[in-house]
Amino acid sequence: MRFKLTPQNTSFYGQFATLATHIRDAAHLLQATVEGPPGEWQTAARRLKELEHEGDEATHAILSAVNSSFITPFDRDDIYRLAARLDDCLDHIEASAEIMVLYRIGELPAAVAEQARVLAEMADLTLEAMPGLEKMHNLREFWIAINSLENDADRNYRQMIAALFDGDRDAVDIIKLKELFDELEAAADSFETVANTVESIAAKES
Amino acid sequence: MRFKLTPQNTSFYGQFATLATHIRDAAHLLQATVEGPPGEWQTAARRLKELEHEGDEATHAILSAVNSSFITPFDRDDIYRLAARLDDCLDHIEASAEIMVLYRIGELPAAVAEQARVLAEMADLTLEAMPGLEKMHNLREFWIAINSLENDADRNYRQMIAALFDGDRDAVDIIKLKELFDELEAAADSFETVANTVESIAAKES
Amino acid sequence: MRFKLTPQNTSFYGQFATLATHIRDAAHLLQATVEGPPGEWQTAARRLKELEHEGDEATHAILSAVNSSFITPFDRDDIYRLAARLDDCLDHIEASAEIMVLYRIGELPAAVAEQARVLAEMADLTLEAMPGLEKMHNLREFWIAINSLENDADRNYRQMIAALFDGDRDAVDIIKLKELFDELEAAADSFETVANTVESIAAKES
Repeated sequence: MRFKLTPQNTSFYGQFATLATHIRDAAHLLQATVEGPPGEWQTAARRLKELEHEGDEATHAILSAVNSSFITPFDRDDIYRLAARLDDCLDHIEASAEIMVLYRIGELPAAVAEQARVLAEMADLTLEAMPGLEKMHNLREFWIAINSLENDADRNYRQMIAALFDGDRDAVDIIKLKELFDELEAAADSFETVANTVESIAAKES
Repeated sequence: MRFKLTPQNTSFYGQFATLATHIRDAAHLLQATVEGPPGEWQTAARRLKELEHEGDEATHAILSAVNSSFITPFDRDDIYRLAARLDDCLDHIEASAEIMVLYRIGELPAAVAEQARVLAEMADLTLEAMPGLEKMHNLREFWIAINSLENDADRNYRQMIAALFDGDRDAVDIIKLKELFDELEAAADSFETVANTVESIAAKES
Repeated sequence: MRFKLTPQNTSFYGQFATLATHIRDAAHLLQATVEGPPGEWQTAARRLKELEHEGDEATHAILSAVNSSFITPFDRDDIYRLAARLDDCLDHIEASAEIMVLYRIGELPAAVAEQARVLAEMADLTLEAMPGLEKMHNLREFWIAINSLENDADRNYRQMIAALFDGDRDAVDIIKLKELFDELEAAADSFETVANTVESIAAKES
């Protein structure tokens, strides 16, 4: 058995930080997009597609590194799982912008901007938590903060859905907006899943 | 390596039973709710939200116990998986009641009560199966019974969907009811996933 | 510890090939169905339901073999995962035909036949890849080919969705067709997941 030197192993943390940086960029771009005019959505959606591809590459780099390392900083399956769950966040953020364009959504309820703001904050916290993986520090605070934000997103989601069915809104509009709300909700859930994954890793290692 | 005494280890079974008790209570409350007047749905949905939180705590207690035990009654990852899958059942039951309230569904087709009855029976069987985990007894019967009930739920679901599109029903009503039918179906599926998880654990341990 | 002889172990590969054969048959039947008249959909859907059951049996045979073998050709959990992911492909193909019948879809956009053609090609490649599991040969080519087809399916899906909302289509028709498009997309995704699972197994074993 060959023992890799520390620099090799710490590269895992750097790779997770790279992936989390793409997520942070994507979440902030989504926030700017939903606050901006519909005429700019297509350009933003294209840029988010690029960020998604960069995220796929970062995820793939992590999986390759796992497979070629004899020693990994934490459990091999947990590295897989965490990379896949981070990738999910990016996918749902990108898909939200794509729905806005594909479904030709004309106008967004104000609550969508609030939802995007929560996602941007979740992405900031996730990026900040990555260095903590190395020393297993402050991960409990991360978990608590993400769960609190997810509760905000959940409350906001329920209000958006209730408002959608409260009135005489056209059925096609309901279909379109519900699809967007569900995708934003899936994005928030995916950050919670990342936090739960991080917490379970920290619990095992402690 | 420190060996935990038996009492410590058997607490896992008690914790699974606690979680399954919350699921049983939730499923029976859902059944009573769909059979009751819409005016009482909101109160029931609130109580189901509480049961969901109690379920989250029970799930979390199992995960903490796994992480602090050197010896677990069966494979650590299987304990994780079973706890998470049981938690899914509760989540889908709670979400069904929430949809009824949020989407302002006015009247339920009669088949919804039948679907809730099947879920209540699945929840009863799941609770009854928990002690079997300790001795790995009667788990095959549990698996067969749940699969049979899931087939009933599936047939019922298909009939509800066909009826939804057979006629001149309003599109917004279709959207609302389809969301409820899908959530009830997801609940039935989650019980089947629990049964499959239990069966794969039993197969490994036998 | 008892060591099984090689013939016993190679039966795993045969079982995976059996499962992949059912998937291949199902995908080609779906393609013929969407290209045929609606009057024949019900018969096809019934035959697909049978293929799904045969797939369940093949999956179950793999899981039983895993549990009764002391030595497995590759990691036990990976065998589970691959069998379950193959089974998902079959489920989504069957569900697509069921939606066509249940939702009383009258006429299919031409792009649906193209989507079914991509699925049939994915199923052919998947069946051809199964023997490669034994020697871990040509699995990289399989992964690349499936990913390329999944990109085609994705592009096609986005065009179908955009066309659905581009015009004055009736809301109920949108609901029905969107359900079918989503299920076909889920089928394509499930083949990509199979390819990713195969790739991760190959990476570990190499």
